[in-house]
Amino acid sequence: MSRLLRGARLGSTKKDIVDFVSSLEADQRLLESVVKINKAHVVMMVDCKIVDQNKAAKLLNALNRIDVNADITKADSEDVHMYVEEIVTESVGSEIGGDLHIGKSRNDQVATAIRMKLREDLVELIFKLAELQSSILTVAEKHVGTVVPGYTHTQPAQPITFAHYLLSFFDAFNRDIERLTESYERVNQSPMGAGALAATSFPIDRERMAELLGFKGVMENSLDAVGSRDFMLEVQSCLTLAALNVTRLTEDLILWSSLAFGVIDLPDEFSSTSSMMPQKKNPEVLEVIRARMSHVAGGFLTTAMAMKSLPSGYNLDLQEITPILWETIECMSSSLSMLIALVPLLKISSVSSNLLDFTTSTELANVLTRKYKVPFRSAHRIVGALVEELVRQKQSLSDTTSELLESVSTRVSGIPLKVSAEDIRSCADPVQVVEAHKVKGGPSPEEVKRSLEARAQVLGIWKETLSKETDRLRKASDELQFLAEQYSTLSHGYSQGLRGWKST
Amino acid sequence: MSRLLRGARLGSTKKDIVDFVSSLEADQRLLESVVKINKAHVVMMVDCKIVDQNKAAKLLNALNRIDVNADITKADSEDVHMYVEEIVTESVGSEIGGDLHIGKSRNDQVATAIRMKLREDLVELIFKLAELQSSILTVAEKHVGTVVPGYTHTQPAQPITFAHYLLSFFDAFNRDIERLTESYERVNQSPMGAGALAATSFPIDRERMAELLGFKGVMENSLDAVGSRDFMLEVQSCLTLAALNVTRLTEDLILWSSLAFGVIDLPDEFSSTSSMMPQKKNPEVLEVIRARMSHVAGGFLTTAMAMKSLPSGYNLDLQEITPILWETIECMSSSLSMLIALVPLLKISSVSSNLLDFTTSTELANVLTRKYKVPFRSAHRIVGALVEELVRQKQSLSDTTSELLESVSTRVSGIPLKVSAEDIRSCADPVQVVEAHKVKGGPSPEEVKRSLEARAQVLGIWKETLSKETDRLRKASDELQFLAEQYSTLSHGYSQGLRGWKST
Amino acid sequence: MSRLLRGARLGSTKKDIVDFVSSLEADQRLLESVVKINKAHVVMMVDCKIVDQNKAAKLLNALNRIDVNADITKADSEDVHMYVEEIVTESVGSEIGGDLHIGKSRNDQVATAIRMKLREDLVELIFKLAELQSSILTVAEKHVGTVVPGYTHTQPAQPITFAHYLLSFFDAFNRDIERLTESYERVNQSPMGAGALAATSFPIDRERMAELLGFKGVMENSLDAVGSRDFMLEVQSCLTLAALNVTRLTEDLILWSSLAFGVIDLPDEFSSTSSMMPQKKNPEVLEVIRARMSHVAGGFLTTAMAMKSLPSGYNLDLQEITPILWETIECMSSSLSMLIALVPLLKISSVSSNLLDFTTSTELANVLTRKYKVPFRSAHRIVGALVEELVRQKQSLSDTTSELLESVSTRVSGIPLKVSAEDIRSCADPVQVVEAHKVKGGPSPEEVKRSLEARAQVLGIWKETLSKETDRLRKASDELQFLAEQYSTLSHGYSQGLRGWKST
Amino acid sequence: MSRLLRGARLGSTKKDIVDFVSSLEADQRLLESVVKINKAHVVMMVDCKIVDQNKAAKLLNALNRIDVNADITKADSEDVHMYVEEIVTESVGSEIGGDLHIGKSRNDQVATAIRMKLREDLVELIFKLAELQSSILTVAEKHVGTVVPGYTHTQPAQPITFAHYLLSFFDAFNRDIERLTESYERVNQSPMGAGALAATSFPIDRERMAELLGFKGVMENSLDAVGSRDFMLEVQSCLTLAALNVTRLTEDLILWSSLAFGVIDLPDEFSSTSSMMPQKKNPEVLEVIRARMSHVAGGFLTTAMAMKSLPSGYNLDLQEITPILWETIECMSSSLSMLIALVPLLKISSVSSNLLDFTTSTELANVLTRKYKVPFRSAHRIVGALVEELVRQKQSLSDTTSELLESVSTRVSGIPLKVSAEDIRSCADPVQVVEAHKVKGGPSPEEVKRSLEARAQVLGIWKETLSKETDRLRKASDELQFLAEQYSTLSHGYSQGLRGWKST
Repeated sequence: MSRLLRGARLGSTKKDIVDFVSSLEADQRLLESVVKINKAHVVMMVDCKIVDQNKAAKLLNALNRIDVNADITKADSEDVHMYVEEIVTESVGSEIGGDLHIGKSRNDQVATAIRMKLREDLVELIFKLAELQSSILTVAEKHVGTVVPGYTHTQPAQPITFAHYLLSFFDAFNRDIERLTESYERVNQSPMGAGALAATSFPIDRERMAELLGFKGVMENSLDAVGSRDFMLEVQSCLTLAALNVTRLTEDLILWSSLAFGVIDLPDEFSSTSSMMPQKKNPEVLEVIRARMSHVAGGFLTTAMAMKSLPSGYNLDLQEITPILWETIECMSSSLSMLIALVPLLKISSVSSNLLDFTTSTELANVLTRKYKVPFRSAHRIVGALVEELVRQKQSLSDTTSELLESVSTRVSGIPLKVSAEDIRSCADPVQVVEAHKVKGGPSPEEVKRSLEARAQVLGIWKETLSKETDRLRKASDELQFLAEQYSTLSHGYSQGLRGWKST
Repeated sequence: MSRLLRGARLGSTKKDIVDFVSSLEADQRLLESVVKINKAHVVMMVDCKIVDQNKAAKLLNALNRIDVNADITKADSEDVHMYVEEIVTESVGSEIGGDLHIGKSRNDQVATAIRMKLREDLVELIFKLAELQSSILTVAEKHVGTVVPGYTHTQPAQPITFAHYLLSFFDAFNRDIERLTESYERVNQSPMGAGALAATSFPIDRERMAELLGFKGVMENSLDAVGSRDFMLEVQSCLTLAALNVTRLTEDLILWSSLAFGVIDLPDEFSSTSSMMPQKKNPEVLEVIRARMSHVAGGFLTTAMAMKSLPSGYNLDLQEITPILWETIECMSSSLSMLIALVPLLKISSVSSNLLDFTTSTELANVLTRKYKVPFRSAHRIVGALVEELVRQKQSLSDTTSELLESVSTRVSGIPLKVSAEDIRSCADPVQVVEAHKVKGGPSPEEVKRSLEARAQVLGIWKETLSKETDRLRKASDELQFLAEQYSTLSHGYSQGLRGWKST
Repeated sequence: MSRLLRGARLGSTKKDIVDFVSSLEADQRLLESVVKINKAHVVMMVDCKIVDQNKAAKLLNALNRIDVNADITKADSEDVHMYVEEIVTESVGSEIGGDLHIGKSRNDQVATAIRMKLREDLVELIFKLAELQSSILTVAEKHVGTVVPGYTHTQPAQPITFAHYLLSFFDAFNRDIERLTESYERVNQSPMGAGALAATSFPIDRERMAELLGFKGVMENSLDAVGSRDFMLEVQSCLTLAALNVTRLTEDLILWSSLAFGVIDLPDEFSSTSSMMPQKKNPEVLEVIRARMSHVAGGFLTTAMAMKSLPSGYNLDLQEITPILWETIECMSSSLSMLIALVPLLKISSVSSNLLDFTTSTELANVLTRKYKVPFRSAHRIVGALVEELVRQKQSLSDTTSELLESVSTRVSGIPLKVSAEDIRSCADPVQVVEAHKVKGGPSPEEVKRSLEARAQVLGIWKETLSKETDRLRKASDELQFLAEQYSTLSHGYSQGLRGWKST
Repeated sequence: MSRLLRGARLGSTKKDIVDFVSSLEADQRLLESVVKINKAHVVMMVDCKIVDQNKAAKLLNALNRIDVNADITKADSEDVHMYVEEIVTESVGSEIGGDLHIGKSRNDQVATAIRMKLREDLVELIFKLAELQSSILTVAEKHVGTVVPGYTHTQPAQPITFAHYLLSFFDAFNRDIERLTESYERVNQSPMGAGALAATSFPIDRERMAELLGFKGVMENSLDAVGSRDFMLEVQSCLTLAALNVTRLTEDLILWSSLAFGVIDLPDEFSSTSSMMPQKKNPEVLEVIRARMSHVAGGFLTTAMAMKSLPSGYNLDLQEITPILWETIECMSSSLSMLIALVPLLKISSVSSNLLDFTTSTELANVLTRKYKVPFRSAHRIVGALVEELVRQKQSLSDTTSELLESVSTRVSGIPLKVSAEDIRSCADPVQVVEAHKVKGGPSPEEVKRSLEARAQVLGIWKETLSKETDRLRKASDELQFLAEQYSTLSHGYSQGLRGWKST
């Protein structure tokens, strides 16, 4: 409001300065929430007997007529708050229109509107992460028995299955969902009633405002309510963690689908090819996603830097961090959409055998210890020597014979070990080795199936929770609109009855 | 282990390369956890009949003799894992010592040890944040009636109380505690049994390992268990948010204690003065804290950058982010200690009256609306004109007379308002104005007292929760040690009985 | 090009995927440069006898008709390169249009276009920094004698002048200009001819291309030319350093213009006020600038993160960092414009005397040493005791009498010092003290005047340099256009003559 | 100094607070510079007749006896400045010792000392980058004819040579050297004489101080001299850019040395292997380097964040950023040492032919255009169809016959092209194709040889420049020490003569 009055006191303000400090562009997203807040505020003021019903009816009538989808970015208003106030004032005159302002301020209103919009965005983002988990499960179910190399240090280390690999990302994204869900609770708190910083001397009802706007509680301390933005930073940090998980997935997919690795076949529509170089399938979508994840992390830093050492209370710096939040969400949301569509189309190429060679040697040592009672250290020494021998002869582990193993074992440890060809074969076979790794969380098909089922259940719970919250928000919104319409037409004595609406 | 064997295969390794990749310095913090993990692993292997009791007794005997406070930074080992293994092997010989390695790997062991140490650190950090909240309550209780300017845009905006101001930070730190507490749950999961990346074919019991080490659950997917570090990033992001809150508090205190603001008197021992410039009290401790908070944020970024696009599975890059975690915790912990000691010593100087002048004007307009039924917009116009008049006469709001207000009101709005001197006086008095702001979360002493009591209860709950968790961890540790000692001496047939120990 | 052909080979591509990887929006800025590059490429190919003059004339005719100000963001092309190629192909047919592609690739073309646009932006940014220096000099010249407190630790420390203060920022921004000027040299290198990554087997003339496009040299190594983006990171890091300097200036101005400090009076049009709180002048423009500087730093980080561990060669990640560069430049440019307009309007309020009190004590000690030959340490002890005495008596340094000083000095050091009232007075007078600090770079008016003159000269040199470079770029552009028109109409045998055009 | 006096005025200071604000640990690196500054200051004060020769001799005697390699980290001093002052004072008494302080302050002294140390570190770092360039040249010279795939999008794109690839990094590091060399000029400026912030009223000679300390100039404005740290940020940003270049090199080497790519064979001593998995060669050193480069970038951010919105003038925050600078340098320096040793040992494995297949197709189209005058677009269409045919027949480009090409060409474009088997063969042979790419900066052996020679010359110039600067610094240091010794023993009248020493 202060700036509205500036013209009168300070002479004309230059347009470029106004443009420079304007927030209208980023405010577009807040229009619907700001209208809702004003409606709820009028309803609450009637209930608290701060404004009378006639005035309230006029205000609500004007508010009900506002098109919440209008393009405000070119409007002549300073921001979304003035835009709404100006429309109302034009309709009902400035004396009545002014009452819209009783007991509130742009400082609490903007904080509230951001939280309302962010709440919606969070529900959508969490839903998308759950959809990505769905995509992962879909592919994983097909590849419970598909053996691929498990990598450490970008080198094949042990055989696992593609399903087992994919589940590692299911679990990582699950933690991302957990974090976002927890941050949602802190977002879903109402600052309304905190005023500019010191609340108000009008007898407003902050809990009622929170309820009308679908919030789970009130940001109590009025300074904290208007001046804190850690709810935004928290969401951005959760998204940064998710983004880092995404970069690791995209990196894997880019590498594994490269001609060199040749493990994964990327879907055509998500890559580009050249008629001249058919071997080349550029993972363009994955590269763009990988790069955009840096934008998410960079957005967090930008916000952190803007908040660093900012004196408490509202400062206009706070206005400048909001657009970054929206960009971050946009960036994450579109990238997740791509992955949701891409992941189910992933195909496994036949894995080149040299990528798996010797990755099962450790299992042979394990079997010597487990079944042939060779001490663990000796078993390792024997297998090490065996492998050295095979490499010298340019052979692979499956070329091991019982005789060779016995001779190596005798030489190295003095024990003439007699290991059955069957045991050797099973240790050289990546499929059988994978099957043997059946402890909880291991790659064996049996365990992975159990794991898939358990995760399908987790996913079901996420989706149900999201669905409930979506319903809750919609109901709160419907109830507010119902009240806004009733209060805009009815005469005296109705408010008690209306308050009971919700419970019916 | 792989590097241990390098000497034999690759010829001598240059010392500077070994030093370059060594993690020994940062590993110091992990020694105690690594010893515990090894003890638990042996106990579990006996229970699962993977090693026999005689071997186990020897291993545990050796493990029990390790001094967990030894300085390992100058040891000749490659890392803390080899340090422990080498001590055991020296004591029991390599054949038996080698069994320590059955079904585990450095990859799962290091992830587990970091989580155990971090768990402790988190409990301590959360406790310190709660202590800082205690400090805040202590000072706030003394200043429920101490009126200070509330600032927006670094300018005095409305009168509040120092207690109300301080509570805004109580609430901010409360969210920090919430976040850290939630992240604790994700830290407190056991990766043991995940092996190098693919679990193991030995029939180990991962849940039992988790239980023995005091974890609440198992990091199931073996790839995820060894290759993910989002638990570290999450803690660092929570600490970054807390750090930003701290910078805002220190910024306020530095400004408010400056000669210019003169609102706060910093305790002498936390500032430096000069005999030549007695007006100068340099807020050195606060400045150092402010700067170090950037280290916390920078640590998060460093880690994020190191993780960005890292292929999944274990890579040695992961080793290089651990020291940053410890530095971040050190940095936060020492800074919180300073604030815990400093805050209770804060004193309020008598606030210069010009900092409060006119900050109550809005309240006069509110009263015109509330009590004298002037439309809100008109009330504002009248008070605006009044203030203009007072400024012209170089007077302050308290110089307003009923006559002046009537004449201004008549001129501006045509209404010859008759406002009692009593009402004017109360609107010009910051103390009374503060008292009028009594809605939930407002600055009125009455509301602030309620708020203080509610927060004292919250604090009580935090401390009780922390105390319970500390007990739980200690009990788990005691039980493990009990078993490690029993298994190191007893003969057959005891394990079933011992497993019941916990419940007695 | 590869993606153009996708339709034929891979079936229809979903629109959302195309949108996701599209760079059209950010490409708008590159249109003019891309057209120029194509013109220069054709001209060069004629000179090198790679295409014949007839084909070249047709191609240039089509290129000359392209509206470089057209809005391409809604075009149906994949990117700006295809946009230009498609227009040309439509005009001259695909067989001739295809020749536009001989010996070049989108990879070298995009790197070249970015550099050309960035070159312009850099000239403008450097010019704005120089304008800001001009603004600083303008105000500084008025305040050579205006004494203000010099601060350390946010506390008044020693008296300086406002001019001296302002010059500290002149010098800081001068280093920013130096850095940007140096980075300009590395930006101003032509990648053209590097092809996709391996240059080309056509006998193109890379130096000639560089010359036609106004570059000072060629990015030689073809891999480096297309795959490196450190020129962007370098500019962003220079701007980050400048941004940090700006935040320090804005922070000072926000503090100094606060009611508490009261040193500076902000121009009305750059702040907002309230009719209700006339003491409140919210430094909104400065706050927005302060916050936006974090966007600059965040942009650097985003880019750094995107480049971290990116395999060499072109990856589509590179496309995603370009928009950040443009946002950073926009952000910096608009903020500098605000400061350029704001700084000359700064006014100094009369500085409250308590902010200067005792800030000159050190000078009294200096005089005792210099003129009265008291050892430095004793002089300090004497003045310390004197100040203590004055504070106890609630007096200020100017209340010191010769007698008081003698008595304190006798007590403290046994020396009955006789200091003239004149000497004491001059040491207690901030104006005289400032005048005494006349060493190079000190605050004395005499030295500051010299410094102002020297800096006016520096500024003159910057502006001349910028003007020369602007001319050089314009001439190169004019020459290219001249050739593009000549080659599009003339017949055989002209090229040698044309090459001589430049020198006439 | 202020804190020194605190004891007397404020009662005992708690040890943990002193420890918290202490900078002693990071100060160790500054000891030698601080001693030199004090010597130079005394010499200058004698020349300027501020202190007499007797006092100066005593001071210099004491200073000359200080062991600049002493471990000060456990000393009982507050910082390195007090450490030096206390030693001198102990030796000559506080009255004379106090004169060391005339006309200087810790604020200018610490800024000067950091610049002196950083100057040395920069010379060393630049030298290491040049050594890395040497290493690159050494390997490149061996591989002028070694054809490897050039990658885009992590996919083989065109054939290049390993030498050509390596030169792309030579050039990138060359820009890093340029940037560091330019930043060196801004580091190499003397803040001495700026005092606490306002210079001094003593007639010191700032240029003389600069000269004695080997600086190229004076940081003129006294506020700027003590309060700015952009010289540190600039160096850190240059190192961040270099670090990003390093991560791209390490990423390439990690990928190319992976079993999947199999292009590069890492030297054994820089990787770890396993006796059980001989195919696994973990690139441990490269991974550690890759991760540590994030520390460099993170250090820049930490510093930027600490400087953001810091009021001008000295604040203790500045102390907290210095240790990060040293860590960054340490980190970069040790990583460069590893690379310098590793790069010359790189070996190329025989590149699997499937990685090069079809990478030369474009060249065939080029030849059709260049030699057979087929329009470029048609040529591409023909080769595209040819490749499709070959892929269908599971053949490679070298299987193309003149007949096949003719039939495809007839079908696609109606032209019965007759291309010689010789031309086809040369286009299918990566070696010949590479040879054909001979434009400036291209991969042809001829051009690469020219490039290698030119770069060897560049390198020679860097090394000579570094060597000259090292000499200059050593001479300045020697001269200072000569004067410090002369002034500590000689009697009157010598100073003029001594000033001439340098030129003899």
